[in-house]
Order: sequence, then C-alpha cells, then structure tokens
Amino acid sequence: MSTLPRVVSAVGSGAFTPASEAHLARELAAHGDLLATVDSFDTDDAQAALAAAEVLVTGWRTPVIDAAVLDAAPNLTRILHIAGSVKEQFTPEIWERGIQVSSAVDANAVPVAEFTLAAILMANKRVVQIARQYREERALIDQAALGVIGSYRRRVGIVGASRIGRRVVSLLQPFDLEVVLYDPTLSAGEVAALGARAVTLEELCATSDVVSVHAPSLPATRGLVSAALIDTMPAGAALINTSRGDVIDQDALTARVLRGDLYALLDVTVPWALPVDHPLYDHPNAFLTPHIAGSVGTEVDRMIDQQIAELDRIARGEPLAHPVRYESLSTAA
Amino acid sequence: MSTLPRVVSAVGSGAFTPASEAHLARELAAHGDLLATVDSFDTDDAQAALAAAEVLVTGWRTPVIDAAVLDAAPNLTRILHIAGSVKEQFTPEIWERGIQVSSAVDANAVPVAEFTLAAILMANKRVVQIARQYREERALIDQAALGVIGSYRRRVGIVGASRIGRRVVSLLQPFDLEVVLYDPTLSAGEVAALGARAVTLEELCATSDVVSVHAPSLPATRGLVSAALIDTMPAGAALINTSRGDVIDQDALTARVLRGDLYALLDVTVPWALPVDHPLYDHPNAFLTPHIAGSVGTEVDRMIDQQIAELDRIARGEPLAHPVRYESLSTAA
Repeated sequence: MSTLPRVVSAVGSGAFTPASEAHLARELAAHGDLLATVDSFDTDDAQAALAAAEVLVTGWRTPVIDAAVLDAAPNLTRILHIAGSVKEQFTPEIWERGIQVSSAVDANAVPVAEFTLAAILMANKRVVQIARQYREERALIDQAALGVIGSYRRRVGIVGASRIGRRVVSLLQPFDLEVVLYDPTLSAGEVAALGARAVTLEELCATSDVVSVHAPSLPATRGLVSAALIDTMPAGAALINTSRGDVIDQDALTARVLRGDLYALLDVTVPWALPVDHPLYDHPNAFLTPHIAGSVGTEVDRMIDQQIAELDRIARGEPLAHPVRYESLSTAA
Repeated sequence: MSTLPRVVSAVGSGAFTPASEAHLARELAAHGDLLATVDSFDTDDAQAALAAAEVLVTGWRTPVIDAAVLDAAPNLTRILHIAGSVKEQFTPEIWERGIQVSSAVDANAVPVAEFTLAAILMANKRVVQIARQYREERALIDQAALGVIGSYRRRVGIVGASRIGRRVVSLLQPFDLEVVLYDPTLSAGEVAALGARAVTLEELCATSDVVSVHAPSLPATRGLVSAALIDTMPAGAALINTSRGDVIDQDALTARVLRGDLYALLDVTVPWALPVDHPLYDHPNAFLTPHIAGSVGTEVDRMIDQQIAELDRIARGEPLAHPVRYESLSTAA
C-alpha cells in the first residue's frame, strides 16, 4: 500500500461526534497511509509525522497553519479541510508555497440549503407560531382567521447566488412559489437559468413573503439588509438568516420583530449566541437556532466522504474536485 | 355567456379566509353562470337556485347532501368539492343518481406532503428541540454531543403509498436519505418505481430514523402503528403523523415519548384537539400542530383553482380530471 498518500490528521479531538470521528479514522486508514492523528502541531510526534506528510487533513478545531507548521512539513502538497470556511486558520503562506487546498464548502452547503428549505416551508405556514398558539390555547384554531399564509403563489426572495443560495433556488423548484433572486454579479438571464427571476434588493425586500439571506460576510455585504430595507418588508413577511449575522442590520430587525408584524428565523446572529437578556429569545415571532443549519451529526460524514474522495484523487494523480483558490477568499463566505 | 354551466356555490360563509372567499367568487363569476351563493339548502332562494343548477360547488362547511337536496336539484350533473374528503357530507344517493363528483383531494395532498417534508428535515436535525434548548440555555450548544442527527445517510420510513405518501417519496428524492415504504397493495417493483424500497411495517418501524404515516383512516388501518411496533422504534427516532390520529396507538406513542427517547410531530390526534391536561402539550420531545398540514391560507386557492379548472372542463364537455368514484370511498382517506 505504499502508493497511498501519507496523511496526518489534525482535525482535533472532539470536533466531531464520536460516530463521525470513528468514521473518519476508518476512512483515513483505508484510503491513506495514516501517519498520525494530532491535536497540536507542537509535539515531537506531530513534528515527526509532519516531516513525512504529503497530505494534511484539517477541521474547524485545527490550530492556525502558519509558516512554522509548513516549515515542519516540507513534503506537504495538499490540505484537505473537513469544514466550510478556511478563513480563520489558513494563512497566505499555504498558497504561496504551492500547496493545494480543498475544502468541504460544497458538502457543507447541502445541509444549509436543506435547513433553509424547511425554514421557508415552515415560515410560509407560520408553523412555529401556530404550534405555540396551540400549546397555549389547547384548542383548534380558526383557520379562516389565519390570514395570508401558505405555500401557494407566494414569493420567496433569495439574497445572494452563493453555493447555498443557488441550491435553495434549485430545491424550491418543485413548489408553487415564485422565486426571486438578488445577486449583483449575475445577469437576468443567468438568474433565470438558475430557476429564479432577477430583482433588485429593494424590490426583493418590499415584495417577498419570505426573504432568505445567502450572501457571504464581506466588507461589502455588512449590513446589506439594512434598516431601510427591513422597514419596507410587508407586514407578515418572514426573514431567514443562515449566512452570517452581520449581513443584516440586527438592531433594525429586532425592532421590527418586536413591533409584531415581521417573523424572523435566525441561525446566525452577532454575537454567535445572543446576550441572555436579548428580547428575541422570548418573542413568539422569532425562532432562533444556535448555528446548526450547517453540518451537524451525520451531515459531517458528508464532508468527510467528500474529502476522502479527494484523497482518492490524490492517490490516482487526479486534480482536486473542490479546490480553494487564494483569490476566492476575498469574495466567498 | 349562456354556454357557461349554471352554478350554485354552497361552500359556506367563513369556511375560507376572506381573501380565498373573494378569489372563489371572482373565479366562479368568470368561469360559470353563478346563480346563487348559499349557506343552507333550505331557504326559498337556495331552492330556486338548486332547481336550475347544473353544478354544485361545496366545501367542508357545506351541509349534508342527501336525497332531499338532490330532489330539489333535478338538473344537477356535477358536484365540485373544494376540500379533500367527501366522507362526512356526501351520501350514496349522489352516485346512485349518476351525478359526477370531483374533489380537491389531489390539490390538498400537496401542502400535506410539503409540511411532511419540512417536518422530516426538522426532525432529522432535531431543530425544535435544539431551538428550545438554545432558548433555555442561551448559549451555543456542543455540536459533538448532539448524537446521531442530520439528513445524511439516514432512513425515512413512509407508511402508506397514498397520494400524499407518494408525493412525500417524490419530494425526498433530492436528499441523501434512504426512503423505505410500506404499502401492502404494491409490489416491490412498484415501490422501487416510486423511488423507495419496499419493506414490511415491522422492518420500517424497527429501522427508520423518521417514520411518517400516510395511511388512510379505515377500519383496517385503525391502530396500524401499534404499541408493539412503537416499542421497536430505535431510541432517538421520530414519528410524524399528518393522516388521522387513530392510525397510531396514541396511548403507546404518548408513553414512549414520555419515556424520553422518541420524538413525535403530530398534526392529528384523537380527539382533534388533545385534552387540555394531555402531557404531550408540554413535553419537549413532542411538537403538536392543530391540523394545519392540509390546505391553509393561500393553499385553499390551489383547491379552488383546481376545481375552477373542472368547471372549465364541464363547459367544454370534457370529463372531470379529479373524479371521486363511489367504490373508492371505502379505501381512500
């Protein structure tokens, strides 16, 4: 088995569930020559393994990969990242030394898009609010009094044709919903080819029954969904955010939800966990989840399986299928 | 416009939202010769309109259509029902007199299947429970401690290849989930053609991560998901019911949920609203909705639009697209 790539795994203990850790260990042993599994790059064992490693496997708990780590790994040609973003831990030196990077951002887009689809369908029927009302009143509700809800001939606005935004548009195709999309980098024809209608962000916010945000967090997108735009959203509309909290003017959103005529489903906020006295926690029109739209549980295995397939490509001398180019870091999530 | 069918609408005031009522009134006036809109068949105006009516439009609030009503409507040839089931209000006399019936059961299957899809995706990630935990703890959760959750390589068991069951199987195709189906009337090949794998009900319950029930309520299906089957469901599994409460042994399900290792998402129960002191209302592993999986809000407009299309077929002399045959009443929901 000397043709298998020599691998060091630095995913980090406790980053995944025990089941996913075991799955990764089995797969790495089967598809690579696993030299070591390390939590830190500083130990003697880690340094010895790095000296021989061709492939480094990383995750969201992996320490920063800086020049010192790379100096210890002169044979390293590939880094396979079993997580979405590489921004926090990957330094420019990696690309400067010609090391190729693959990330599981494509695999991680899948559960986010699926979570978003469920959130859109739930928001359209106001399921969370009705369930709460049922628990409080313990009687059937007057359906004729529910107002304009439902998933028929209503408008869903997608902000950003990111990997996730595109996948949400695709998942929405079987439904009787009008899908509008705002993305300043695409032409109307390109948006139509995705299965949506191109609109301005202003029209999207002012006319959509549900708005879902899939823009990356960049200097240019900070506060993209501004107080002024939030004010134009129709009464009864819902805003879903699974991207990054700072893409939305959170104070304006909070004020509008507290006013009582806007619904919010937020998987991301600023800060990551809202302060314990934040009013959205208890407001019936807010549904908060603690950053779980991305890969959780077995969904981590999808990222693992995707990166194991990259290891197979390396063994066969093929190019990586999910490369992360240095230039993309300034425009991607 | 004398070629338009002469129509009496007996849908009943307040059955739909004001928006859907207005939509129906507009569509009936545009596609038919609307003689009258009545809440009861007993008034002089209703009797006069029935005498001339060729088409009767009905809904879930329409009074029972018995021999007396039919005697008053000698020109009646079609009944268009803007609701799913005709069981409560339609008597055998209708079919005995050769009157053709169309129902919106196909249109009503759409929102139920969509609600179920959202419920499956939510159950796989345990979204409701995690949101509740977040609201109580107000801190991010340890994702590695979440256990076996997620929508990747997990098994979804569909009980019953009804209209809704088939549609759920179809909606599940884009996801990385194994779909197994129990339906005693289909061969393994027929189930495979739908996009699922045929299993026994025993295997389905004992091995699925999520079970969703789509069997009609019939004498033969009462208690179909029995106490013994509920006992075999794996720890951490979820049971979704959007069909009828009596298809599940509700006491056994309640006991299992209270034990703490089974999740339940119930849109239907026995009785329709659970008693106010029922323990499922407050249990964190239960998510109860008050019979809203079917058409609510704009989804009623889908049923209206489907039945208006039937009215157009009648005007053109074409057969109904959604006929309800008398024989089907003993096997359908």
